[in-house]
Amino acid sequence: MAKNKKIVSEITAMDVDFAQWYTDIVKKAELVDYSSVRGCMILRPYGYSVWENIQAVLDKKFKETGHENVYMPMFIPESLLQKEKDHVEGFAPEVARVTHAGSEELVEKLVVRPTSEVLFCEHYGKIIQSYNDLPKLYNQWCSVVRWEKTTRPFLRTTEFLWQEGHTAHATKEEAEAETIKMLNVYADFCEEYLAIPVVKGQKTEKEKFAGAESTYTIESLMHDKKALQTGTSHNFGDGFAKVFDIQYADKNGELQYVHQTSWGMTTRVIGAVIMVHGDDSGLVLPPKIAPTQVMIVPVAQHKEGVLEKAAELQGQIQQFARVKMDASDKSPGWKYNEYEMKGVPIRLEVGPKDIEKEQVVLVRRDTREKIFVPMAELATKIPALLEEIHQSLYNRAKAHREENTHVATTYEELQQIAEEQQGFIKAMWCEDVACEEKIKEDLSVTSRCMPFEQEQLSSTCVCCGKPATKMVYWGKAY
Amino acid sequence: MAKNKKIVSEITAMDVDFAQWYTDIVKKAELVDYSSVRGCMILRPYGYSVWENIQAVLDKKFKETGHENVYMPMFIPESLLQKEKDHVEGFAPEVARVTHAGSEELVEKLVVRPTSEVLFCEHYGKIIQSYNDLPKLYNQWCSVVRWEKTTRPFLRTTEFLWQEGHTAHATKEEAEAETIKMLNVYADFCEEYLAIPVVKGQKTEKEKFAGAESTYTIESLMHDKKALQTGTSHNFGDGFAKVFDIQYADKNGELQYVHQTSWGMTTRVIGAVIMVHGDDSGLVLPPKIAPTQVMIVPVAQHKEGVLEKAAELQGQIQQFARVKMDASDKSPGWKYNEYEMKGVPIRLEVGPKDIEKEQVVLVRRDTREKIFVPMAELATKIPALLEEIHQSLYNRAKAHREENTHVATTYEELQQIAEEQQGFIKAMWCEDVACEEKIKEDLSVTSRCMPFEQEQLSSTCVCCGKPATKMVYWGKAY
Repeated sequence: MAKNKKIVSEITAMDVDFAQWYTDIVKKAELVDYSSVRGCMILRPYGYSVWENIQAVLDKKFKETGHENVYMPMFIPESLLQKEKDHVEGFAPEVARVTHAGSEELVEKLVVRPTSEVLFCEHYGKIIQSYNDLPKLYNQWCSVVRWEKTTRPFLRTTEFLWQEGHTAHATKEEAEAETIKMLNVYADFCEEYLAIPVVKGQKTEKEKFAGAESTYTIESLMHDKKALQTGTSHNFGDGFAKVFDIQYADKNGELQYVHQTSWGMTTRVIGAVIMVHGDDSGLVLPPKIAPTQVMIVPVAQHKEGVLEKAAELQGQIQQFARVKMDASDKSPGWKYNEYEMKGVPIRLEVGPKDIEKEQVVLVRRDTREKIFVPMAELATKIPALLEEIHQSLYNRAKAHREENTHVATTYEELQQIAEEQQGFIKAMWCEDVACEEKIKEDLSVTSRCMPFEQEQLSSTCVCCGKPATKMVYWGKAY
Repeated sequence: MAKNKKIVSEITAMDVDFAQWYTDIVKKAELVDYSSVRGCMILRPYGYSVWENIQAVLDKKFKETGHENVYMPMFIPESLLQKEKDHVEGFAPEVARVTHAGSEELVEKLVVRPTSEVLFCEHYGKIIQSYNDLPKLYNQWCSVVRWEKTTRPFLRTTEFLWQEGHTAHATKEEAEAETIKMLNVYADFCEEYLAIPVVKGQKTEKEKFAGAESTYTIESLMHDKKALQTGTSHNFGDGFAKVFDIQYADKNGELQYVHQTSWGMTTRVIGAVIMVHGDDSGLVLPPKIAPTQVMIVPVAQHKEGVLEKAAELQGQIQQFARVKMDASDKSPGWKYNEYEMKGVPIRLEVGPKDIEKEQVVLVRRDTREKIFVPMAELATKIPALLEEIHQSLYNRAKAHREENTHVATTYEELQQIAEEQQGFIKAMWCEDVACEEKIKEDLSVTSRCMPFEQEQLSSTCVCCGKPATKMVYWGKAY
């Protein structure tokens, strides 16, 4: 028992080494394991189950907004990837190449998809003929491969799981509306399901997606005050359509190029969940995506009637929450540690004394608060408590972000905050890439986004002093 | 209108050219499109939606039987694949190899998974220590790649979607029970959801999976009298465990090798659905996996009240069936053809006269039968009709299989049936691979399986005349 207990509690403290704390959690909470291919991770049942819950919610939202799922091949001929210049420049340095198949060397080499724009373009070119065929609103769930130099579970891996939406529209306006709509779907998802507040905004020219006309992003702030890009949505205009000749006959019979978008969210959001909500005891999962929302731990389970009552409660609770019971012969102490490590939102303790009083003890993972609840009230109290935990996690994360969002109106201020306080730094910018590059080089912070909610902090660029046109969120990022 | 109508009805008749009929359907029903990589197909929304319905049912069955989903990397180091001799011999000739990534040539070449036994073995070797860790019941949904010389949509493609279950058990008996249990899950699924009757049995030594101790299979008979292997389940014994050193401490603290299984079902079953149920007007989908179960076609929809009533009916029907309405300006005739091609089980026609009589017309896709139903009875009549269509499809497929299952007790009979009648041929066998090979070479039929339901057709092998030990189903196969 003692040995088991020690194993689960042995994680590095956040303040001692945040990176090690993160790595400890993903291993100890059994989210992932490493495979023998560098940078490729195994999503273990607990980690995959979080992803399944995320998928279920997003997939429903995509379908409600009129999108259909498809599956495109994982291989892209090199010549196809090379068609769009900016796009290939962005991805060529990090693609995995298949050169041999069976006993033969391939005449045309293939790349494993790093993203599937060109496949969708080729397909759209074939299936879109008239305005009746538009819009095309497709999405796919798959894995993609980008050869990364340094990798970390969830945050940056050679292969990762994601969804990629790819749409084609008749007009520029419709494409822009779609791009913003899907960014809002991501933002609402992060706030309402992951309890992670986000800043919505546009990427600068320098930071936008390879081949896009404009890229929108949601950015969130981790516990260590670094930013994480949590989802992106791109408007391609008719750039890809011209390269891939995707035209439709409009109502007057005239040929027009389509306008396209793409948008994606990845397993990276699980990294965000860990780094926004986790603590020194392990993972803290937002209730709405937690594989298990309530873990029942019977106390003195060898005593008559305890296991029976616990099983009866499990049967009741599973009508309104995802519940499990650990009736193994491990000690309650070991179990408490284990499910704290795994971030289960509510622990339910029930023993002989509780049964006598017809009550149970609910213990919140986030605050450790103990609540005595009559058994007869579980059907109202548990759902209410799950909702309260969600709100509380969101509020805490938002307070953390607000405490760590600073304003800089001079370069000295910018430098001081970047070096000492970190977090998000709001500052004005002239939109000249030279200033953006200087800030990055000098201070190791990058432009996270130009937020939709603009403020006029001052009239001049924080870097060069020329007239400013945009307020930017700056920060160190994953 | 006329032009559109012609396009959808232009498919080759089954009896003229079955292979062309098949290809026409997958294209015209918009199930798949070809990509620019040979043998890789695009699953279009309609085809993918069938797969999503299949996934939903199977995934639920897997979870109900205690399995958990995981995700393993798509890349396998060559050295890892080579560890198990039979396994690598079976798959090496058809793997895609990644030799370069980014700008570098890889020191250790990678293969794209053709199946993931070795990855699960490596992982199990790390996470299994004691009997408490067993059984491990994992499954994953993913795509795999096998470089095929000739390909056909769904039936044989370079990349295909599937699920692969991989389990580890303490004993030989538990592994065998799991293997049979999952075969039964597949068999029940085919019969209860796809309306496809199957023969359950064991593969011969020659036909079993590379590295398995025994392979079980479900075999079904297509409209053209060829067999299709629809799902397989393998018992590996402790063969892989010994190679990968997967041991656990039993209750006495002694190290034991685990016993493993794997089992898989692929998008190939969609090919079976097409070839078992389809007809000269297109696809015929079994109701339980049809993306749309009821398609409403308003008649004289420009007349007052028709579209409103049709929409009202749609609202009612969606409470108990997957329903869509086509209110486009295409003619009813075009729509009839289109949804027959797409195999929608029930067409609901409603026009001014029907509204007057408070009735609708239901048209069965499978029999073309027209049924007049009072609007007030749709909530009982439609579910009952969907069930009846399922049963009717199953019965028709079973009758077809029975008509085309023959008995051969002499080699002359076997030859005559193989050449003239085809279908399944039941015949006795001595279990000598030489006879199996001679039959394959002479008659181009292979052993499909040794069915669980054995019969004593005669006492001698149909090939060599020596004492027979097994009854075998023989046939030409996809």
